[in-house]
Amino acid sequence: MIRVTVWNEFKHEREYEGIRAIYPDGIHMCIAKFLGTQPDLEIRTATFDEPEHGLTQTVLDNTDVLVFWSHALQDEFSDEVAERVQQAVLSGMGLVALHSAHFSKIMKRLMGTSMTLKWKHSQTEKLWCIGPTHPIAQGVPSMIELPEEEMYGEYFDIPKPDDVVFAGWFSGGQVFRSGCTFTRGLGKIFYFQPGHEEYPIYHNPDIQRIITNAVRFCAPAVSARQTLECEAL
Amino acid sequence: MIRVTVWNEFKHEREYEGIRAIYPDGIHMCIAKFLGTQPDLEIRTATFDEPEHGLTQTVLDNTDVLVFWSHALQDEFSDEVAERVQQAVLSGMGLVALHSAHFSKIMKRLMGTSMTLKWKHSQTEKLWCIGPTHPIAQGVPSMIELPEEEMYGEYFDIPKPDDVVFAGWFSGGQVFRSGCTFTRGLGKIFYFQPGHEEYPIYHNPDIQRIITNAVRFCAPAVSARQTLECEAL
Amino acid sequence: MIRVTVWNEFKHEREYEGIRAIYPDGIHMCIAKFLGTQPDLEIRTATFDEPEHGLTQTVLDNTDVLVFWSHALQDEFSDEVAERVQQAVLSGMGLVALHSAHFSKIMKRLMGTSMTLKWKHSQTEKLWCIGPTHPIAQGVPSMIELPEEEMYGEYFDIPKPDDVVFAGWFSGGQVFRSGCTFTRGLGKIFYFQPGHEEYPIYHNPDIQRIITNAVRFCAPAVSARQTLECEAL
Amino acid sequence: MIRVTVWNEFKHEREYEGIRAIYPDGIHMCIAKFLGTQPDLEIRTATFDEPEHGLTQTVLDNTDVLVFWSHALQDEFSDEVAERVQQAVLSGMGLVALHSAHFSKIMKRLMGTSMTLKWKHSQTEKLWCIGPTHPIAQGVPSMIELPEEEMYGEYFDIPKPDDVVFAGWFSGGQVFRSGCTFTRGLGKIFYFQPGHEEYPIYHNPDIQRIITNAVRFCAPAVSARQTLECEAL
Repeated sequence: MIRVTVWNEFKHEREYEGIRAIYPDGIHMCIAKFLGTQPDLEIRTATFDEPEHGLTQTVLDNTDVLVFWSHALQDEFSDEVAERVQQAVLSGMGLVALHSAHFSKIMKRLMGTSMTLKWKHSQTEKLWCIGPTHPIAQGVPSMIELPEEEMYGEYFDIPKPDDVVFAGWFSGGQVFRSGCTFTRGLGKIFYFQPGHEEYPIYHNPDIQRIITNAVRFCAPAVSARQTLECEAL
Repeated sequence: MIRVTVWNEFKHEREYEGIRAIYPDGIHMCIAKFLGTQPDLEIRTATFDEPEHGLTQTVLDNTDVLVFWSHALQDEFSDEVAERVQQAVLSGMGLVALHSAHFSKIMKRLMGTSMTLKWKHSQTEKLWCIGPTHPIAQGVPSMIELPEEEMYGEYFDIPKPDDVVFAGWFSGGQVFRSGCTFTRGLGKIFYFQPGHEEYPIYHNPDIQRIITNAVRFCAPAVSARQTLECEAL
Repeated sequence: MIRVTVWNEFKHEREYEGIRAIYPDGIHMCIAKFLGTQPDLEIRTATFDEPEHGLTQTVLDNTDVLVFWSHALQDEFSDEVAERVQQAVLSGMGLVALHSAHFSKIMKRLMGTSMTLKWKHSQTEKLWCIGPTHPIAQGVPSMIELPEEEMYGEYFDIPKPDDVVFAGWFSGGQVFRSGCTFTRGLGKIFYFQPGHEEYPIYHNPDIQRIITNAVRFCAPAVSARQTLECEAL
Repeated sequence: MIRVTVWNEFKHEREYEGIRAIYPDGIHMCIAKFLGTQPDLEIRTATFDEPEHGLTQTVLDNTDVLVFWSHALQDEFSDEVAERVQQAVLSGMGLVALHSAHFSKIMKRLMGTSMTLKWKHSQTEKLWCIGPTHPIAQGVPSMIELPEEEMYGEYFDIPKPDDVVFAGWFSGGQVFRSGCTFTRGLGKIFYFQPGHEEYPIYHNPDIQRIITNAVRFCAPAVSARQTLECEAL
């Protein structure tokens, strides 16, 4: 059983009617719902407003994979919790960082770079699979068309990924490394660009398949967390 | 002094008036001309119709970097010469493989994969730099627009490149890993997608800059060739 | 069910009494035996002396992962069969290449390099895991000591691996990239250095665990083979 | 002209007579001296005790490559200065991090991992070149023997390097990725393990050659620093 915590900022969905219409219970509940149909996944959720953002040490100790969506409150996110999540990843917890979470404190700490990119609202995206043998690409078509999505464009300031599984084409002329894996310490990370809150991206079955695959890929071989330390012989 | 041999099949330019109008003396002479303006480069050319395709052992022994364009005669290319070029690369000769040369016997031998891709004539390409610190990207704008180019699209069946320096966006909806480096043995390789014979791609100053940078990047540190062999201790 | 074909040259074991004492039925039968204990693996074997080396198109079409050990007869190995195996890998068959199989025609074709290295008999090897999150490393100790093994030393002329999972330390002073993954076309490859025929390497349970993990890692997601071809749009 | 700042903690050399005997003016002065013989390098030094550790914004703005040695005072190193150095690297400054600087705040911020390893005093190291085509390896022998060095052993918790140029063999049985390149933002980084303060490592001409090559490799193409920012189109 893979224990998944789906974390969402849960701000836009409560502020804007148009977004609430797409995700009435929040992005986290939409993701929790489709992940919850999988018999090997055990799902809980957490949001920004909970104490310690719902990411207490106990929660992280009992999470195999954290799915993370954030945007407007990234500066307000607790440094202490960001540090705690980083340590959990280094000791083996998987992390699936979605869309604007590229700019979260958690991703910046784990990647070490500025995580900057170009962006623009409302473009068509075609998401091409350029890593067909990767576990995250299994059962996914060679191209997924998203009629409307926020454009994220290069140069995307990330360290070289372990693998670039998906590359995004945008109608306005940009390209993007849209699905990237990284390893940090004992933790596996998947960053996935699709998922702007104004479009029903997470209702797309192919996108759901990718996120489900990513959760399984990022799950640690054993749930027991291991803190790496320097060792004198 | 970097000794460069620019090789071209030199078939289309003699057959089709429209192509001859773009490259009156052949693609090789166009490339030789702009490379020849560089004081550190010494240029010779060779073409398919010459004995041994102009790639004798002596020529290869005196070549630091081979720039290679091929297309229609790839099946007719001598297996023996392809093997000889492969060995030259493994012993340190640089290789800049252009456009349809992805499907040359030389590239197939060095890469080991099918080198297949999707293709379509006449699209607009935007070539994005996704490796701004790479030597091949120096002095090159973040995006180069080619009003008309042959589309090459993913999935491109190559081994994982050392670096993907450029990614191509095509107006028809495709993306491509358009500028990739590889190391094989002691030889450095740059594969570069732009350069369909029907469009004046190699007259573009930014494309010329990339190829010039690539020649310098692929040049071996020392010209002396070294054949690697198994060694019993 | 993963369909595994274990291929062995099966020459040394019939020629030398000392080697026969270690592998009375051949290296292939030793490997087939420990793989055969796994409920998800279905094992057959093949050897050099069989027609077409036992690697007919039908056998390959029904093989998900080929485990391959070769040494003395590598030059005599059929070019046609080597080509056939290469194509099977590119279309999705997994390959676990053991020890001296680095110098097989199959590996040379898939890698494109000289595959040369340094070697010496009878040294102690310590095999360190430097990729602890890799599926092939699961359940394997951080270091495996092999009291006697053939030294393989750098410089090992391979393309840059996808991952170096194990690094070998040898008592004579050499190091080696002993466990490397590669992707070629739709096929996943694991090269694993331990396994000189004069020492009982494949009787070691940790080595058996690594090979078992590698078979599962290299198995394609779907058994249906897919031949990649260029495609005009 | 490449503007190099050699930074050293400069604590051990003033505390221990044995270390002072090896580096009478400090490790920084030894490195500054051999780098200073190169006509294309302009050298300054800085140490921990200077205001802001000698790494003011003005110094960093005028530094193309920072060579950095630290050990005992890593916890006391200013967070503000570490942040400033990180930003300088992301905007293009090269970094050559030596030996125990793997555990500096600067490297931890840039890498995102624990940077932990195994260690033990006084072993023989053999440093093997496993990236012979890399610019940092030019003119360097295939193996460098260091009669006495501190052992650093795997598992070394780093992100996957761009290239592993050198691998260390240690007489006690360990191996290590001893020379690794990384890119972070617009900055190039070389981490190099040799250099324990109790042994005259930086007096070794081959080690000096590697560090000199690394400084040239890590130097930015243009000295002008560029801060990457998110950009709305």
